[in-house]
Amino acid sequence: MPHDEFPAGSVWLVGAGPGDPDLLTRKALRLIAAADIVFYDALVGAEVLALISGDAERVSVGKRSGRHSKDQGTIDTLIVAAALAGRRVVRLKGGDPAIFARTAEEVAACAAAGVAVRICPGITAASAAVAAAGSSLTLRGVARRLTFVTAHAQAGAPLDLDWGTLATPDTTLAIYMGRAAAATVSQQLVAAGRHPDTPVLVVVNASLPTERVIRGRLSALAFLVDTISATDPAILIVGEAMAGAPPTIGSAVAARTDRAIAAAHRPLTD
Amino acid sequence: MPHDEFPAGSVWLVGAGPGDPDLLTRKALRLIAAADIVFYDALVGAEVLALISGDAERVSVGKRSGRHSKDQGTIDTLIVAAALAGRRVVRLKGGDPAIFARTAEEVAACAAAGVAVRICPGITAASAAVAAAGSSLTLRGVARRLTFVTAHAQAGAPLDLDWGTLATPDTTLAIYMGRAAAATVSQQLVAAGRHPDTPVLVVVNASLPTERVIRGRLSALAFLVDTISATDPAILIVGEAMAGAPPTIGSAVAARTDRAIAAAHRPLTD
Repeated sequence: MPHDEFPAGSVWLVGAGPGDPDLLTRKALRLIAAADIVFYDALVGAEVLALISGDAERVSVGKRSGRHSKDQGTIDTLIVAAALAGRRVVRLKGGDPAIFARTAEEVAACAAAGVAVRICPGITAASAAVAAAGSSLTLRGVARRLTFVTAHAQAGAPLDLDWGTLATPDTTLAIYMGRAAAATVSQQLVAAGRHPDTPVLVVVNASLPTERVIRGRLSALAFLVDTISATDPAILIVGEAMAGAPPTIGSAVAARTDRAIAAAHRPLTD
Repeated sequence: MPHDEFPAGSVWLVGAGPGDPDLLTRKALRLIAAADIVFYDALVGAEVLALISGDAERVSVGKRSGRHSKDQGTIDTLIVAAALAGRRVVRLKGGDPAIFARTAEEVAACAAAGVAVRICPGITAASAAVAAAGSSLTLRGVARRLTFVTAHAQAGAPLDLDWGTLATPDTTLAIYMGRAAAATVSQQLVAAGRHPDTPVLVVVNASLPTERVIRGRLSALAFLVDTISATDPAILIVGEAMAGAPPTIGSAVAARTDRAIAAAHRPLTD
């Protein structure tokens, strides 16, 4: 480990990636192995937790869509207290700490207490999902913009996502925690002008052995998520870049004339 | 290496991440070490290239904003030919293959030739940039949407990014290859209604020893990029989540009352 990378009494917020321990970065692996205590989300799986040092304390802070076993303020307090006690603290977050991960609150809590805190990025679910599907989130000349939103509304509140600006045809829309909101997403995007035949990709447990890749059309999105368990993380991706079939290693895939891929080879007019 | 992960005559599109070789995933490291031939972008640095097997052939395909030494069709052809010759081919891309990386074209070219192709995701520049700054791309209740665009227009063409939908105040906007377009971005976003005092973050050479983190306001964006070399990759990030100062490990950081972080602790009204 580089000198002073992880002094006693400091905190690292570490991205655990989408689930496959092979998708952790080398830096994350080193920090996890060096921690005295690790606070981890419910979405961080057993194979990643196995990389924590046997001498380290493990604390589940159990956040998961719909059932937060500890609120954010409690998590902030626990992290800061552990650091002030002189321990090397890792806060291990599913995916990337930069995306829908309450990282700013934890950084602010550390800063307010005079605790040094740094961030190690991770692979976010959308990247792993399209990698599994042999696709890209952007497609030159076709999907020129990529937008991430979360469909995790406050309990009882309607999902307010400003659908009009999400419905522009050159946008790929990645919806985190989207399973429960699939019917609303489909209805609202079509109502806002997105074509009902827009390709969608749904990936459950991206990068894990239990991964499922489901393709379909926006109008059928509620149907596509129908068999997904409420406890399995699912990401919904909507846009022309999601056209095309997944290539399979070892198989000879016939030439495809999919409209999105054909479009990528057309001369640009923009 | 897992059985059949990388058969002869197949292609892996691999994310090299933002530059720091410690931000490669374990999977990417294994694939790079196993390749017979590696086609790499100009943005992939020497420390990452050092991880390639000494027996492997290295081919620069030299894509960089403003000077493409090989066009995309040539790259597609080279990759496919190497695979058809029975070699294990890695196409090593800066950042994440899913984001502004021409991945769909390379997947389509392989599929058309019957060559098996798979994708290994990487850390994208925006994630590494905010990690360096101790920030997050999203901020609960404040920055609820994250949009990635590229400012790399076709030569001579005006930059057409549909500014109106990018100017909504709850959006964090990450602009890849944005240095040359900084003045346009600033003018157009303000003209479309984004507040001139919106915080911005500019990160040059994110994750590398030469990294620079520059903070300022949207109205001054052109000034902020003024000292950045045209050959250094820079990402511009605009939005309320970019408020706040970078915490520094080992230093005692005083409590901050920054408006964005305060906002993150306010009760949600949405």
